[in-house]
Amino acid sequence: MNYAMVVYTLGWVIKVEGACMLLPCLIAGIYTEKQGLVYLLCALFCLALGMLITYKRPKNTELYTKEGMVSVAGSWLVLSLFGAVPFVATGEFARPLDAFFEIVSGFTTTGASIRSNVENLCHATLFWRSFSHWIGGMGVLIFVLMLIPIKSGSRMNLMRAESPGYDVAKLVPQVRDTARILYRIYLGLTFAELVILLISGMRWFDSVCITFGTAGTGGFGVLNSSCGAYTPAQQIIITIFMALFGCNFAFYYLLLTKKVVQAFKMEEVRTFVAILAGAGILIGIDIAHMYHSAGHTLRDSFFQTVSIMTTTGFSTTDFDVWPQFSKTILLLLMCIGACAGSTGGGMKVSRLMVCLKENKKTLKACLHPRGVFKIRMDGKALSDENVHVINRYMLLYVGLFALSILILSLDKFSFETNFSAVAATINNIGPGFDAVGATQNYGAFSDLSKIVLIFDMLAGRLELFPVLLLLYPGTWRKHVWS
Amino acid sequence: MNYAMVVYTLGWVIKVEGACMLLPCLIAGIYTEKQGLVYLLCALFCLALGMLITYKRPKNTELYTKEGMVSVAGSWLVLSLFGAVPFVATGEFARPLDAFFEIVSGFTTTGASIRSNVENLCHATLFWRSFSHWIGGMGVLIFVLMLIPIKSGSRMNLMRAESPGYDVAKLVPQVRDTARILYRIYLGLTFAELVILLISGMRWFDSVCITFGTAGTGGFGVLNSSCGAYTPAQQIIITIFMALFGCNFAFYYLLLTKKVVQAFKMEEVRTFVAILAGAGILIGIDIAHMYHSAGHTLRDSFFQTVSIMTTTGFSTTDFDVWPQFSKTILLLLMCIGACAGSTGGGMKVSRLMVCLKENKKTLKACLHPRGVFKIRMDGKALSDENVHVINRYMLLYVGLFALSILILSLDKFSFETNFSAVAATINNIGPGFDAVGATQNYGAFSDLSKIVLIFDMLAGRLELFPVLLLLYPGTWRKHVWS
Repeated sequence: MNYAMVVYTLGWVIKVEGACMLLPCLIAGIYTEKQGLVYLLCALFCLALGMLITYKRPKNTELYTKEGMVSVAGSWLVLSLFGAVPFVATGEFARPLDAFFEIVSGFTTTGASIRSNVENLCHATLFWRSFSHWIGGMGVLIFVLMLIPIKSGSRMNLMRAESPGYDVAKLVPQVRDTARILYRIYLGLTFAELVILLISGMRWFDSVCITFGTAGTGGFGVLNSSCGAYTPAQQIIITIFMALFGCNFAFYYLLLTKKVVQAFKMEEVRTFVAILAGAGILIGIDIAHMYHSAGHTLRDSFFQTVSIMTTTGFSTTDFDVWPQFSKTILLLLMCIGACAGSTGGGMKVSRLMVCLKENKKTLKACLHPRGVFKIRMDGKALSDENVHVINRYMLLYVGLFALSILILSLDKFSFETNFSAVAATINNIGPGFDAVGATQNYGAFSDLSKIVLIFDMLAGRLELFPVLLLLYPGTWRKHVWS
Repeated sequence: MNYAMVVYTLGWVIKVEGACMLLPCLIAGIYTEKQGLVYLLCALFCLALGMLITYKRPKNTELYTKEGMVSVAGSWLVLSLFGAVPFVATGEFARPLDAFFEIVSGFTTTGASIRSNVENLCHATLFWRSFSHWIGGMGVLIFVLMLIPIKSGSRMNLMRAESPGYDVAKLVPQVRDTARILYRIYLGLTFAELVILLISGMRWFDSVCITFGTAGTGGFGVLNSSCGAYTPAQQIIITIFMALFGCNFAFYYLLLTKKVVQAFKMEEVRTFVAILAGAGILIGIDIAHMYHSAGHTLRDSFFQTVSIMTTTGFSTTDFDVWPQFSKTILLLLMCIGACAGSTGGGMKVSRLMVCLKENKKTLKACLHPRGVFKIRMDGKALSDENVHVINRYMLLYVGLFALSILILSLDKFSFETNFSAVAATINNIGPGFDAVGATQNYGAFSDLSKIVLIFDMLAGRLELFPVLLLLYPGTWRKHVWS
């Protein structure tokens, strides 16, 4: 293991985080909050430490798959550890574990909170919570990758370990170029939402934070009612942008390069839109009796559907009081998640499609044991190896899910609470049902459960492998071929 | 499709069922119940119809995989349809769908009941319910296979489609011989339990019915308290036999052929015993505060653990009031299920082991992308194809599970009810939690939900493929190569 290079990468992450922390200082300055000093000290400390570590570049800048995985998992841990410090230092989170939970929830774009009341947090902290979504949304390492000099193959190993979705790296041959294109799309959409929200008359601070939460598909709000207090027009704007950020970024790349037909033929995007529309309408019908107007019904049903499926986690109403059918649809959407190559989490629409196509193929193969059938996406046949990677991913996912529920059950909450808490963290959504419903929070869980949920958030965001490898003894042994 | 041969097979099934129905007549005779007449008429009708259909053997007795699958699924449907007639004819089940649910639950060895009170059923009906477990336990077609003249390859296709577990057919080269060996083990163990229960002082009628329920890993009892009213000694006897019937029958075959060392080295059996022991002790610790003596605690914890994991479904106490941790353990055990090659249902221990080994291999492969790793069971390397069949099975399983929960949620029961109802039927267990807990029943569900659960019971018992193929349009088309 090339420890020197791993540490060097982590140094860069700390340095970038330090720079990011200067922004909440600015916010504190605007609102003349004394907590700004805490953020300033933390920022300076991170910058100093990062510079110290990255002062000398290692001679060997090679990173293989293993080091890539370890660097990525390590980066997210380090990022969260340092990111939690101001929460504790300002005194707003009494317990360090709670602060860590909150910031991991931020960086992994989960949006699950420990706090019942967020309106009594200072602006700097609210901003830092939301900003962490935006940083985490695209992946901090991809950003760092554009800055540090490193071998191209190594860059690929890092990117593969961090990027949301399994085919994001293939837009253009050069990884650095792909990262630039993705960041531009990300910045462009963010800017568009911010401007439109400001025009709609939303307070500038809310606009900024809500935009960060939408862009990263995070879900931390600045009001206790999440998005319930905003105007209908603002809620519709947020709904549209949540859907846009949950869409595969390759779609926008195709649009930008004027391949419009190809873009609208993307099977994953079509399926994503079809599921959203179907689920939104079904829930609308199911909850109609609770509303007076069809407009309000559909606004609420689509806001929640899009928020949950894109794994954002904003809410405009307490969907925990909805009928069981609507709740079950939302629970299944939680596990499906957004498109691959988006900022959203979950299993990803394309994986679901591969699994469904595989099921159909299995039945076909039963009828014709000697037939050869291929699974196709967008007309291209998937290799068997690709399909098996997805199968294995699903197995790990189900296994981690089951184990997490088992540990959580020690806390004596209901099965619905435990199941949805795990679903909401492993898929990076935020709110679940019952004791972790839209108006509730994760504060009541025991420390053990919180640690499990922190692990699930990280594992979910990094698509399991990098985080699980940290726990696998073979990673730390010199020879694991036995 | 060789329809003539499929119909011929179904005719044999009806004939055998008619013969089986003579036994409840005998019981009715002993207790001088007038319902015996109903059973007699049904039996004679089945015998006559079966003889009519099988009067002439088709010229072409060949059955390919597709016909095998359709025959098996068709057999179980026909068996249940005719089996439900006496329930309706005696007037004990007012609605035909309820009667059908009850008998499907019997033949699939599920043991989920529509009735809250079973003590007011006549002895003939109680016997027929329990006897259906025993018939379903080993698979009615395997029995028919020993009787009818059919090509050897075709026999294999039928057996593969019906047999519990994926490697049962490999004990000895000849399928007919394998079936004979399995039946002898089944009969031997059944007889042993019956004798021991009689010696323990249980009423002979209870002994017979409970033995049938244990042997088939079914779970219908003859008392409203299931097994709660029996003596501690009798409960321990039942616990031991439930575990014995949940064990891979290849284990007994090895013992009978004096390969004792090889038998005790079977990884699946060791894992099965280890999980039972671990779960029983963990639950014992968790529920200890609810009991006065350690003996009673362990008796109840092990009875329920063994009953659920072997997918039998008997109970000695209302485990729905146990703490969430114990309930979650039971819920996970439900999905794991018994050993392959046993009469039990569920995913099977060996499939779980393959999945866990695959997860380990996946992590290893992450570290060494170019390494080649094999998954081994009992020292033998599994072919990639075998592993992928298991993967695909798991995907189908999860997909059917999710879809079933969604449809059940229309009924407005709790998530725990819906989740455990699906788990308890798809894995052929019986009782679930909350509204389908050990002291509850399935009568309150809507007709749509009951149909879904009936489908799940059949799909679970036949390991998905045969039943799902019935719904797949390609099965009924002449050419499906497109």
